[in-house]
Amino acid sequence: MIITSDKTTSPFLRNAWYIAALSKEVDDEALFTRKLLNESVLMYRNEAKQVIAMRDRCPHRFAPLSMGKRLGDVIQCHYHGLHFDAQGECVHNPHGNGKIPKACAVQTYPIIERDGFIWIWMGDQEKADAAMVRNLSIYTENPESAVGHDYMYNKCRYDLVVDNVMDLSHVDHLHGPLLNSAGKLSPQVPQVKELDNNRISIRWDWTQEPAMLLFREHMPRTEDAAQMFVEVVWQAPASMTLEVGAVQDSSDFTNDGAVLYDFHAVTPETEHTTHYFFASSRNYKMDDCEYNRMKMEGMIEAFTQEDKPVLEAQYREMGDQDFWELNPVLLSSDVGSLRVRRTLDKLIAEEQQA
Amino acid sequence: MIITSDKTTSPFLRNAWYIAALSKEVDDEALFTRKLLNESVLMYRNEAKQVIAMRDRCPHRFAPLSMGKRLGDVIQCHYHGLHFDAQGECVHNPHGNGKIPKACAVQTYPIIERDGFIWIWMGDQEKADAAMVRNLSIYTENPESAVGHDYMYNKCRYDLVVDNVMDLSHVDHLHGPLLNSAGKLSPQVPQVKELDNNRISIRWDWTQEPAMLLFREHMPRTEDAAQMFVEVVWQAPASMTLEVGAVQDSSDFTNDGAVLYDFHAVTPETEHTTHYFFASSRNYKMDDCEYNRMKMEGMIEAFTQEDKPVLEAQYREMGDQDFWELNPVLLSSDVGSLRVRRTLDKLIAEEQQA
Amino acid sequence: MIITSDKTTSPFLRNAWYIAALSKEVDDEALFTRKLLNESVLMYRNEAKQVIAMRDRCPHRFAPLSMGKRLGDVIQCHYHGLHFDAQGECVHNPHGNGKIPKACAVQTYPIIERDGFIWIWMGDQEKADAAMVRNLSIYTENPESAVGHDYMYNKCRYDLVVDNVMDLSHVDHLHGPLLNSAGKLSPQVPQVKELDNNRISIRWDWTQEPAMLLFREHMPRTEDAAQMFVEVVWQAPASMTLEVGAVQDSSDFTNDGAVLYDFHAVTPETEHTTHYFFASSRNYKMDDCEYNRMKMEGMIEAFTQEDKPVLEAQYREMGDQDFWELNPVLLSSDVGSLRVRRTLDKLIAEEQQA
Repeated sequence: MIITSDKTTSPFLRNAWYIAALSKEVDDEALFTRKLLNESVLMYRNEAKQVIAMRDRCPHRFAPLSMGKRLGDVIQCHYHGLHFDAQGECVHNPHGNGKIPKACAVQTYPIIERDGFIWIWMGDQEKADAAMVRNLSIYTENPESAVGHDYMYNKCRYDLVVDNVMDLSHVDHLHGPLLNSAGKLSPQVPQVKELDNNRISIRWDWTQEPAMLLFREHMPRTEDAAQMFVEVVWQAPASMTLEVGAVQDSSDFTNDGAVLYDFHAVTPETEHTTHYFFASSRNYKMDDCEYNRMKMEGMIEAFTQEDKPVLEAQYREMGDQDFWELNPVLLSSDVGSLRVRRTLDKLIAEEQQA
Repeated sequence: MIITSDKTTSPFLRNAWYIAALSKEVDDEALFTRKLLNESVLMYRNEAKQVIAMRDRCPHRFAPLSMGKRLGDVIQCHYHGLHFDAQGECVHNPHGNGKIPKACAVQTYPIIERDGFIWIWMGDQEKADAAMVRNLSIYTENPESAVGHDYMYNKCRYDLVVDNVMDLSHVDHLHGPLLNSAGKLSPQVPQVKELDNNRISIRWDWTQEPAMLLFREHMPRTEDAAQMFVEVVWQAPASMTLEVGAVQDSSDFTNDGAVLYDFHAVTPETEHTTHYFFASSRNYKMDDCEYNRMKMEGMIEAFTQEDKPVLEAQYREMGDQDFWELNPVLLSSDVGSLRVRRTLDKLIAEEQQA
Repeated sequence: MIITSDKTTSPFLRNAWYIAALSKEVDDEALFTRKLLNESVLMYRNEAKQVIAMRDRCPHRFAPLSMGKRLGDVIQCHYHGLHFDAQGECVHNPHGNGKIPKACAVQTYPIIERDGFIWIWMGDQEKADAAMVRNLSIYTENPESAVGHDYMYNKCRYDLVVDNVMDLSHVDHLHGPLLNSAGKLSPQVPQVKELDNNRISIRWDWTQEPAMLLFREHMPRTEDAAQMFVEVVWQAPASMTLEVGAVQDSSDFTNDGAVLYDFHAVTPETEHTTHYFFASSRNYKMDDCEYNRMKMEGMIEAFTQEDKPVLEAQYREMGDQDFWELNPVLLSSDVGSLRVRRTLDKLIAEEQQA
């Protein structure tokens, strides 16, 4: 069912693909619920294993449909027994003569599931363009032993997580030995480019001696300097691919070096809380399941022990105040995150004026 | 002390009897405190065992009187030692020359204790009409072994509990085997009547084969069909008698069948939280204490395990939004609860315009 | 760095010395953080052991500086590595060409550490007058075995704590045997004086038989009457010296009697929560460490078991309502606390109009 939602007061970009869940979070049987952009969303797989998403709220008395039962692809409301099909249409009303009121339907949302992620469109459905979903095919093409996906929850505004990934100079300061970049990023003014589709890229290149610990053992000469790079490509509203690599004796990271292919995306739960989705792959030790497990654990631990506490503390200090009204001091390393903020602000303003 | 309270901003009907507590909650000695309609209320029994109710707030510095001491029927404030009698008048001021300031008094509330419940009137005292307290004499007249009273607490708005009892079609869908009505209520358009004193009744009659599990063993032929009925009578602001029964080979439920006489009443603690009072009696196995205990436990469990989770989830979805602004889809089974909502809205509007 | 903060909306007097911490709370190494007047404040001791205080918020992205590292007297922000010296000036920017943006500085606050307390000035720095810090030299001059300092936290507005100390008639009613004044204070209209520098004193004199339990064993004749007094001197915004003593056969409390020299001061954390600082000394048993320990424990226990519960309950009853709008009944014992309220209200109004 297509129902025009009240976008005028939304603090979020509505006409955009957000990640709703990891593929593995929505199993074949259970009803899965998550609040996204202030709306409770029910997700489940129909009998063809496609993910269905609809407002997790019965239109009769607002009970969450996720408390209900599945009857095949149909959801029965727990409270008064209305049935809704996968299109959100009421298909059975056990009350009175059984006539179904015209307005008895649930908002559904377009879903695209690809490469381990479930993307959702919560804006005008005629604008939902599947071509705008990011290409993350590396997570499908690479063997499972070289791919990981994870989910984290943050008590901060989603834009602070985007700032964090767009300004990787923090890696010089915040992170422990595994990811430490030895002060090499901060002195640079990173290269920022505006790409098509409102995408923005930022890239740092540097030499580190020896290579960042994460890559060191994969270098031919573990104690010698390596050429390194990291490149992030943001796409509205809040997803970022991140490639980071090291190489010796070559300038071809992909074929001669060790490269990580990461992906960071956030979806606002509310204005104050954030769902954080993460994936990672690589071009080395691709068949090593145990290495894969340890690498994912190390990255998640770095995030939850190092980034998350500072992001949440930062947000407690900011409270509900507008970022710009707090008069932030701007540094050269903010060049990417500010470009992203201005682009996103512009997109939201355009959408709300439309 | 009669003090005109500020009713204009109250979201609740003020000129009405609400239940403040079960009789057994207020013992002979202790000071009992409960927030009702956003006001903290002190209750205790005077030496004649009558329940006294007054604002639980010293007029001097607003310390709760319930933290103080009893001196017979007089309450001594814990903080600065003022004494208030059971009429809320200050009868001792230990300060200075002991003169009692004119305004030094506590709001008291008319109380009627009857049939296991303590009713309170928090509006204009000249309008407090004892005749408007509901007749629940069955809970006094029946033997103790056939009567139970209980209290529950709900994190939802009080009107959602009223809706729940006024629309018993939910019993077809929400409840487990004990109370299940086998889909028989929903297809009916129940019979709604407006009675005197703004009371509204709703009634369903049906045949169930075999009878509802709760009644089955009390039927002459346990596996055969029984004639059943349930009738609820709401009275403003928020109390409902509920009779439900089964009979075979007769149309006289009272004399030939098994009937439960239940009572549900809610009192807002705040706009967001609700005190739920419940009583039950019956016309069968009236001397069986053990059956009585098990029946009460079963009913309370059905409520706390089945109704309460959906009511609280429903309220989390609704938040502070007005019921009508959420555009609820209306079903035939809402006929009673909507009549109640409109009646209560009208009474509140009339009271606030008066 | 002197940064004019936004005082117009502050509910607190800004141009005043508040206590930020006990001296012993800020050790030689650690970064100590506490929210004061709604602002997070970082405190630490520089290498000369002087206390430094600055806003606990990096001006770049608002991460708390207290999450960072000390490099001697310099603080390194945990997130992007900016360095701030003890004057709040940015002295190292690892980003880009290292140029330090003009606005890159942190608000610092004048500090005076004296007599076991760290005082902070959070208003206009040119008005910070060290002479206005209260003289508490007794806590430095007396031996350690006769001095104690402590900290408590209260979930109530700070003015309720001031009221509590300015109206000691509550000691007749609220407190257990140790501090009980046997109803002797309430009947008096205490003597209130306006002193210089907006200070206000209040004093009670009375005879108690036998003396208050705390002093009894220090009297020549433990079961006989003693002459007693208590005098409180408030100074804006929220500190009070309190002397209480007993004597027999003399009118010279100081030389012939037993006297406690207490100090109570509160600092708002927020409008709703309060830091409570306390010190005590005496003129008897001054070398008895064990007595000192027990006396401090007894006083802290009296406060946390007797005063704190009623102050917090009082605040829950008052909520965010203005004290005067609640129409408090005034008693003769309020004479000091009301004079203080009016003086403080006047000072805040004058400051906000300036």
